[in-house]
Amino acid sequence: MLRFCLLGSGRMGYVYAKIISEHPEAELVAVINPNLKSAITLIENYGGNAFKTLAECRESIEFDAAIICSPTNTHLQLISEVAKAGKAIFCEKPIDLSMERLDQCISVVEQYKVPFAVGFNRRFDPTNLALRNRLMSGEVGNLNMLFLTSRDPSPPPIDYIKRSGGYFCDSTIHDIDLICWLTNDAPIEVFSSASCLIDDKIGAAGDVDTAMTILKMKSGVLCHINNSRKAVYGFDQRIEIFGSAGMLQTNNQRETLLSYSNEKVTDAQPLLKHFFLERYGQSFALEVSDFIHCIKTGSNPAVNQWDGRRALEIALACELSHREGRIVKL
Amino acid sequence: MLRFCLLGSGRMGYVYAKIISEHPEAELVAVINPNLKSAITLIENYGGNAFKTLAECRESIEFDAAIICSPTNTHLQLISEVAKAGKAIFCEKPIDLSMERLDQCISVVEQYKVPFAVGFNRRFDPTNLALRNRLMSGEVGNLNMLFLTSRDPSPPPIDYIKRSGGYFCDSTIHDIDLICWLTNDAPIEVFSSASCLIDDKIGAAGDVDTAMTILKMKSGVLCHINNSRKAVYGFDQRIEIFGSAGMLQTNNQRETLLSYSNEKVTDAQPLLKHFFLERYGQSFALEVSDFIHCIKTGSNPAVNQWDGRRALEIALACELSHREGRIVKL
Amino acid sequence: MLRFCLLGSGRMGYVYAKIISEHPEAELVAVINPNLKSAITLIENYGGNAFKTLAECRESIEFDAAIICSPTNTHLQLISEVAKAGKAIFCEKPIDLSMERLDQCISVVEQYKVPFAVGFNRRFDPTNLALRNRLMSGEVGNLNMLFLTSRDPSPPPIDYIKRSGGYFCDSTIHDIDLICWLTNDAPIEVFSSASCLIDDKIGAAGDVDTAMTILKMKSGVLCHINNSRKAVYGFDQRIEIFGSAGMLQTNNQRETLLSYSNEKVTDAQPLLKHFFLERYGQSFALEVSDFIHCIKTGSNPAVNQWDGRRALEIALACELSHREGRIVKL
Amino acid sequence: MLRFCLLGSGRMGYVYAKIISEHPEAELVAVINPNLKSAITLIENYGGNAFKTLAECRESIEFDAAIICSPTNTHLQLISEVAKAGKAIFCEKPIDLSMERLDQCISVVEQYKVPFAVGFNRRFDPTNLALRNRLMSGEVGNLNMLFLTSRDPSPPPIDYIKRSGGYFCDSTIHDIDLICWLTNDAPIEVFSSASCLIDDKIGAAGDVDTAMTILKMKSGVLCHINNSRKAVYGFDQRIEIFGSAGMLQTNNQRETLLSYSNEKVTDAQPLLKHFFLERYGQSFALEVSDFIHCIKTGSNPAVNQWDGRRALEIALACELSHREGRIVKL
Repeated sequence: MLRFCLLGSGRMGYVYAKIISEHPEAELVAVINPNLKSAITLIENYGGNAFKTLAECRESIEFDAAIICSPTNTHLQLISEVAKAGKAIFCEKPIDLSMERLDQCISVVEQYKVPFAVGFNRRFDPTNLALRNRLMSGEVGNLNMLFLTSRDPSPPPIDYIKRSGGYFCDSTIHDIDLICWLTNDAPIEVFSSASCLIDDKIGAAGDVDTAMTILKMKSGVLCHINNSRKAVYGFDQRIEIFGSAGMLQTNNQRETLLSYSNEKVTDAQPLLKHFFLERYGQSFALEVSDFIHCIKTGSNPAVNQWDGRRALEIALACELSHREGRIVKL
Repeated sequence: MLRFCLLGSGRMGYVYAKIISEHPEAELVAVINPNLKSAITLIENYGGNAFKTLAECRESIEFDAAIICSPTNTHLQLISEVAKAGKAIFCEKPIDLSMERLDQCISVVEQYKVPFAVGFNRRFDPTNLALRNRLMSGEVGNLNMLFLTSRDPSPPPIDYIKRSGGYFCDSTIHDIDLICWLTNDAPIEVFSSASCLIDDKIGAAGDVDTAMTILKMKSGVLCHINNSRKAVYGFDQRIEIFGSAGMLQTNNQRETLLSYSNEKVTDAQPLLKHFFLERYGQSFALEVSDFIHCIKTGSNPAVNQWDGRRALEIALACELSHREGRIVKL
Repeated sequence: MLRFCLLGSGRMGYVYAKIISEHPEAELVAVINPNLKSAITLIENYGGNAFKTLAECRESIEFDAAIICSPTNTHLQLISEVAKAGKAIFCEKPIDLSMERLDQCISVVEQYKVPFAVGFNRRFDPTNLALRNRLMSGEVGNLNMLFLTSRDPSPPPIDYIKRSGGYFCDSTIHDIDLICWLTNDAPIEVFSSASCLIDDKIGAAGDVDTAMTILKMKSGVLCHINNSRKAVYGFDQRIEIFGSAGMLQTNNQRETLLSYSNEKVTDAQPLLKHFFLERYGQSFALEVSDFIHCIKTGSNPAVNQWDGRRALEIALACELSHREGRIVKL
Repeated sequence: MLRFCLLGSGRMGYVYAKIISEHPEAELVAVINPNLKSAITLIENYGGNAFKTLAECRESIEFDAAIICSPTNTHLQLISEVAKAGKAIFCEKPIDLSMERLDQCISVVEQYKVPFAVGFNRRFDPTNLALRNRLMSGEVGNLNMLFLTSRDPSPPPIDYIKRSGGYFCDSTIHDIDLICWLTNDAPIEVFSSASCLIDDKIGAAGDVDTAMTILKMKSGVLCHINNSRKAVYGFDQRIEIFGSAGMLQTNNQRETLLSYSNEKVTDAQPLLKHFFLERYGQSFALEVSDFIHCIKTGSNPAVNQWDGRRALEIALACELSHREGRIVKL
């Protein structure tokens, strides 16, 4: 049994606590939160011991791996502590919002040679995995264009927006990682255009809520991303891959498989899966399984610090392109 | 140019008049209706001469072929006159509602050896033709089951119901003909069950508005037909063919190809094509073209008197099965 | 914690063992199989104690409820023993294949007043539940017709066919139960027509592999069921409900939500969920949860002995209709 | 009857000749082509008189309106001649490939005050019209994003590419016009990125075959266009409109409405409508009808010289953006 320490007990803390508690090869032994009450509430549901700090935890308990899902600005400090302790690290995305601090994270991880995985969970979504397998099998021939649609059902609270690092580093970064993963290629230039069309408060907070991005890859392949903070019909997640031999498309998942027809509408479909916890639920469990498998076999996590670095670098370039109204070379 | 005489100037008269007037190898030379005013109104739109009777017409004008779309009870008399005159005949379905009179029609047609086509237009529908081609190419392997869904958008007037010959001879007969055509097989027994669930006035007129039929074919293949006089979402026409190697399905046609998603419905499709004149518009033109082609080449019409006879025989067996609550052997 | 005794350790035994072992309010304490080795293998995976007989089990251990998933011909004896012991019973469908013996089961259950549930799991399928909720909410208005398509991906072994009780009691019975549940109505007459088109060995075993059934309900509503032992494209489970105000349809579930287009095919969809353990996986867990809930609250199971009796009675009528080529009144 | 003179007898010449010959209020009286043989071949099919030049035509025949579908570089000269003669003009897109020459066209049209329509036929497509009607009715609320997918089934000959004016002025211009029409808005900046991924000969001819464009509108609405010279699965024409209250999507049209399922594919759809003459066939007839209606009622054509000018201006900006790798302000 792999003993897990959970750093953070917010929404994602609960997601990971449940996954670990149900995994046959893992157990939750510690939950850390400076707000001890929050950690205690979590262990009442999923077991383990609650601590205020990692140091206190390490004094009284042994663990093999840590899942870091605390606020982004605490990642560098926690990664350093866990790496120095020689434990495997699973870090929620983004690793950090500054390239400089992210490189410090990488340094410490490389120095102490600990397994490091970053939580780009969407790579583990069964539909996305099937998509990539069919792409790799050659069904679309040579890649020409990719299209990612990623629209949330509703905007997060303004407080979240303010500390999110901006729309591109918060949301588009997921799509950027998927593009790099699907194409096995990297962008040479990006262009982003964005507006605040949904909620003026988002604009007042200095951010945008509607964005389009074009990435031109080394190979000449063109990639499009569109993001919206609010799709009234639900969480809209689609990928289209267009190549010389055909096209692959992923479609939205629905709550049930009913259709309805009357004199006004015909074939109305039921609602989409609500949001990322519902739509990507399986992917979180699969990425933790993969992390456990990597630790047990000594193999390198599929999504590691360099993936995290590359995605942030591109997201920051998108942000810059939008701010300065120009193409940004990479 | 093939000269056509049109017997009847009701709704179907207009359909055929338009088709003939637009066909490059045909012209409308005469329209006959005992109600001369009705015939005159039609020729004002599509040309030709109006007459009260076929006899008057033949005295003053020559024609090569007749399209009979007058009331069903006049078919036998008109078929006899046209056949004796040695002209090609296209007769709307049903040829007649009595097997005895239908056999008289066949006798006179056989005696005078005139080309005879019966208006089972749905065989000429491009979607049905494509379906049959793919079936014949072996894509479904050995046939196991067929399913025909045929539901009207709304019931006809009660007056029409009363002289329709009953639901099975009026509507189900189309599906029966399609089954015989698609399977190249004939039923050995039928069972029909029916109810009056939509309009009590239909029941009061001695008819039904909701019906299901099972046909067991010589080959053991099982065929299902369902009919309804009223589908609020529109004219519902679907066929499903299930066999050892796969399944073929035809879907409903829609006015446009839009879909719409909001917080209540997602992917609502636009309305279905309204009714048979819209949905099967192309098929009427194609069946007339085929008739013209047969006359010009001396070949036998694809859908002839024997098809009309077989379909009526089966439809009457369905009616009997429903009336007596028993299986009817054929 | 509710202590469960599992009677049977075949394929369904594993399904229920897993569900109980994962349920927060249940634990598996005993597994019984005259073939003790089979019971031992199961408990190695899911815990509990293995016994050859219920008597031995009861001498050494206490339990609160039994799940009977042994061969059908053992149900009567086991139901009697468990009922006399005053324990709650969950019995796989069919309870028995003879109406006489089934009525003996009911007698003993009624006499000892034990909670009794029968495993018509498809009622607990989330898609079917959503379908029924929308039907009950009035979205289709007055019911006119129901259509159930239920086709297996491939036939079971001939040995299974031989002891299955015939196609109608083995397969159609599921659809019959769904129809009664969805319509809140009962058939007044049934007609079934069937063929052996898929595998001659099934015919040689005295059974059929392709069947169509019409049920006419008290209300006049017409219901169609079609069954096939082999759909090469996968497990095909669809329901269509047609009424005065609209139509509801359930569609097949697919492994992933990809579509593919090339010059030969466009929008090909991935494969269907393989078979009932995959397609109806959730429903088994939900029916056990419901059973546990009923025991804890003292309420009557949603699907009980009378549902089992009614479904068998109708399935036997279908079998008779097919055998004698006639309508059977109920 | 409106008498039409057709300037040009190439592929589009045949399209317009057929439409005019079938229109109840129009007749084809003259066809002009310096290659007289080509004009003669056309009139053998559709009637009228053949001439080498417009001058010769005007000496011997009267006409009311001209359709200009000759090579683009002849448009300015022909527009000038017809405008001076005071006749109504329908000009195929693009009016010209140079803004300077296009402005000369506009000057002469304004000076002689002749009705002028430009052939952006896709506005007249019934699906696009239905899309716009529903957009105008407010179904999507405030516009946020538009997406146009426009991919040809196969590239044109290299000779066509060389004189096409470049991919943006040849193809993207259609999508640009649709965006302006759908949004009732104009772009303030464009960014285009393009590659040559399909055929090296296109690259050798100085052009691209794969392109993505972002248009930011005055309102802040973001619009995406993607174009490809080769979609192996067929002519791909889709529009998606995303707004605060919902989403509208148009889907591809197929030859028939069949789907097919076997053990490898499920629900494969038949091929898309082949290319623009098939997919947009109705739109050409509707735009000519609209032109005739405008002439008869003295109203201004829905798509006029200013629409042609705006679309070219934006297409040239896209070309510049692609060439110089920068955003272009408008």
